[in-house]
Amino acid sequence: MTTTVQPASPPASTRALAADLTGRARDLVEPYLRESVALLEPGLAAICGYHLGWTGPDGSPAVPAVPAGKAVRPAFALLAAEAVCGSVRHAAPAGAAVELIHNFSLIHDDIMDRDEERRRRPTVWKQFGVPAAILAGDALQTLAFDVLLRHGGRRGPQAAERLADSLRELVDGQARDLCFAERPWTGPEAVTVEEYRAMALGKTGSLLACASGLGALLGGGTALQAATLAEAAGQLGLAFQCVDDILGIWGDPALTGKPARGDLRERKRSLPVLAVLSGADAPARHLADLLTAEPGEAELLVAADLIEEQGGRALCEHEATTALARAHALLDRVAMPASTRAGYAALAAACVARTS
Amino acid sequence: MTTTVQPASPPASTRALAADLTGRARDLVEPYLRESVALLEPGLAAICGYHLGWTGPDGSPAVPAVPAGKAVRPAFALLAAEAVCGSVRHAAPAGAAVELIHNFSLIHDDIMDRDEERRRRPTVWKQFGVPAAILAGDALQTLAFDVLLRHGGRRGPQAAERLADSLRELVDGQARDLCFAERPWTGPEAVTVEEYRAMALGKTGSLLACASGLGALLGGGTALQAATLAEAAGQLGLAFQCVDDILGIWGDPALTGKPARGDLRERKRSLPVLAVLSGADAPARHLADLLTAEPGEAELLVAADLIEEQGGRALCEHEATTALARAHALLDRVAMPASTRAGYAALAAACVARTS
Repeated sequence: MTTTVQPASPPASTRALAADLTGRARDLVEPYLRESVALLEPGLAAICGYHLGWTGPDGSPAVPAVPAGKAVRPAFALLAAEAVCGSVRHAAPAGAAVELIHNFSLIHDDIMDRDEERRRRPTVWKQFGVPAAILAGDALQTLAFDVLLRHGGRRGPQAAERLADSLRELVDGQARDLCFAERPWTGPEAVTVEEYRAMALGKTGSLLACASGLGALLGGGTALQAATLAEAAGQLGLAFQCVDDILGIWGDPALTGKPARGDLRERKRSLPVLAVLSGADAPARHLADLLTAEPGEAELLVAADLIEEQGGRALCEHEATTALARAHALLDRVAMPASTRAGYAALAAACVARTS
Repeated sequence: MTTTVQPASPPASTRALAADLTGRARDLVEPYLRESVALLEPGLAAICGYHLGWTGPDGSPAVPAVPAGKAVRPAFALLAAEAVCGSVRHAAPAGAAVELIHNFSLIHDDIMDRDEERRRRPTVWKQFGVPAAILAGDALQTLAFDVLLRHGGRRGPQAAERLADSLRELVDGQARDLCFAERPWTGPEAVTVEEYRAMALGKTGSLLACASGLGALLGGGTALQAATLAEAAGQLGLAFQCVDDILGIWGDPALTGKPARGDLRERKRSLPVLAVLSGADAPARHLADLLTAEPGEAELLVAADLIEEQGGRALCEHEATTALARAHALLDRVAMPASTRAGYAALAAACVARTS
């Protein structure tokens, strides 16, 4: 029995390439983010700047520097533009738009989940109150449409329409996730693995897919190229969510920054749990019993081991691997420069082989 | 000393015309609203349907019928299209977009203000919880862009860009309003009447202005026509907010459905209060003292009378009258059919001469 994830770590060169791509994306996209946020009322701009790691709670430059978000979504937007032989500069507004949406959803998610810490600092609602956090999120959603329509060029409107579709999918995924918590652990009303997949594709896949689709669109790609690259990124989002679920039970707190077995403690309907419950056998009933009561540390440990023994973790890893393979198969359908394909491989590896 | 507002009520024919216009707007816009909401995940669609008065909390048709919102904003969109001799049908997506934004902001406002009742039913957060209410609001914002981009025709993208601008102004106004509550009653840090005006133009004026501007745009009007009609509606929004402030102190609870002197009890920085405080004299200090402590019913009555005696109510009424006059002057600059001009006059009167 292991209690921490020991993924097959990608080689250092792959990790360096992924870091290069996200770093480049951050550099290209950040001017758009800063220009957008500066359009807001100064108090609101300061709150958004705090969330984005630019400033401290009082608006002063953040010292020591806060680790910025990973800019994975912007990196996918830029790669997609390269994949269709377009200019990454043209795709930068797409990267900015998805990053704004990502951060809007983080701010609102933290309120919904009552999470008090993000990137080792108090969350926006914790620091500035729920009303200000709701407004800050609302403002970032607006800015995402704004940046696409103002800087997206001739294809900006089409991109904005696509963004609205993705946002619907994102919100749908979150709504499904929210409903999961109220459903029973077992019986005909229980959450199915299929429902989980639809939720994860919406909640995590839609924005990655959107980043790729918009990047391809603004990069001048065809509708087919955009759709294929979007679907590939959506599958990576599904893989990403599976890994998240594994880390949520077996992740090392020292690396994740979250308590061990947090997803079990919060009784999340995550994939490893659902996989065991779907058996509807004695172990499933045992797990449901363990999670139905307010489980203590001892029960959480028993539950984690039970899930692993019953193959819940293995199924989740299999699901991630399958989604990853689907993503690669889709990427292979798009003729692209070898360096771009290598970039996709590095980002895909970074999404899956991670410890935090 | 009066304790209820007794506005000069417009003639019955004017009231009937305003009701006709909002009724027609509701009929034209509702199919777009229903089509939009139906795009959402069913659980989320049900929550939005509840908020919009279509269904009960369990998703069943609302019986008895809930009084629908007044559709004032859609009515402005359609009138603006008529004013530029365009088709009201072309402007219907504009009306739907602003109505979606209006309802998104109501749902989020109710969370921020902890308001438990709206249209005589529990608010969305009260009925379904804060997380669901946040998501439902987020979804409606997205749908507003969606409906404009999908149904707005050739000018849809320009309209969506304008919508993003207005949303920024709306959120800015809300952010200012939020900050007001933390500022002192007197001294150099106190809220000024000028700041109040900027807040009210953003919070209430921006969406009315947007409705008019988008209606003119989709109706085929020129940029100048759209800007003039938008500015006129923005001034009506300011007048509307002034009347709201008067009702918030002197409104009749039987008509407003809210407790008497509610704005004083909640210690809102409303215009009648700010007008007296700006005197920085003995009455101003007296009022500040009354409002600084947790005022009881007796203090609230004294404060309301003090504000009236010191001319705070008169100034607020004057501000509303001035904004109304500016709106009419702007409307007179746009050559439009006489029946459309009469419609504007009726809607303007309805915004100002109201008791709830």
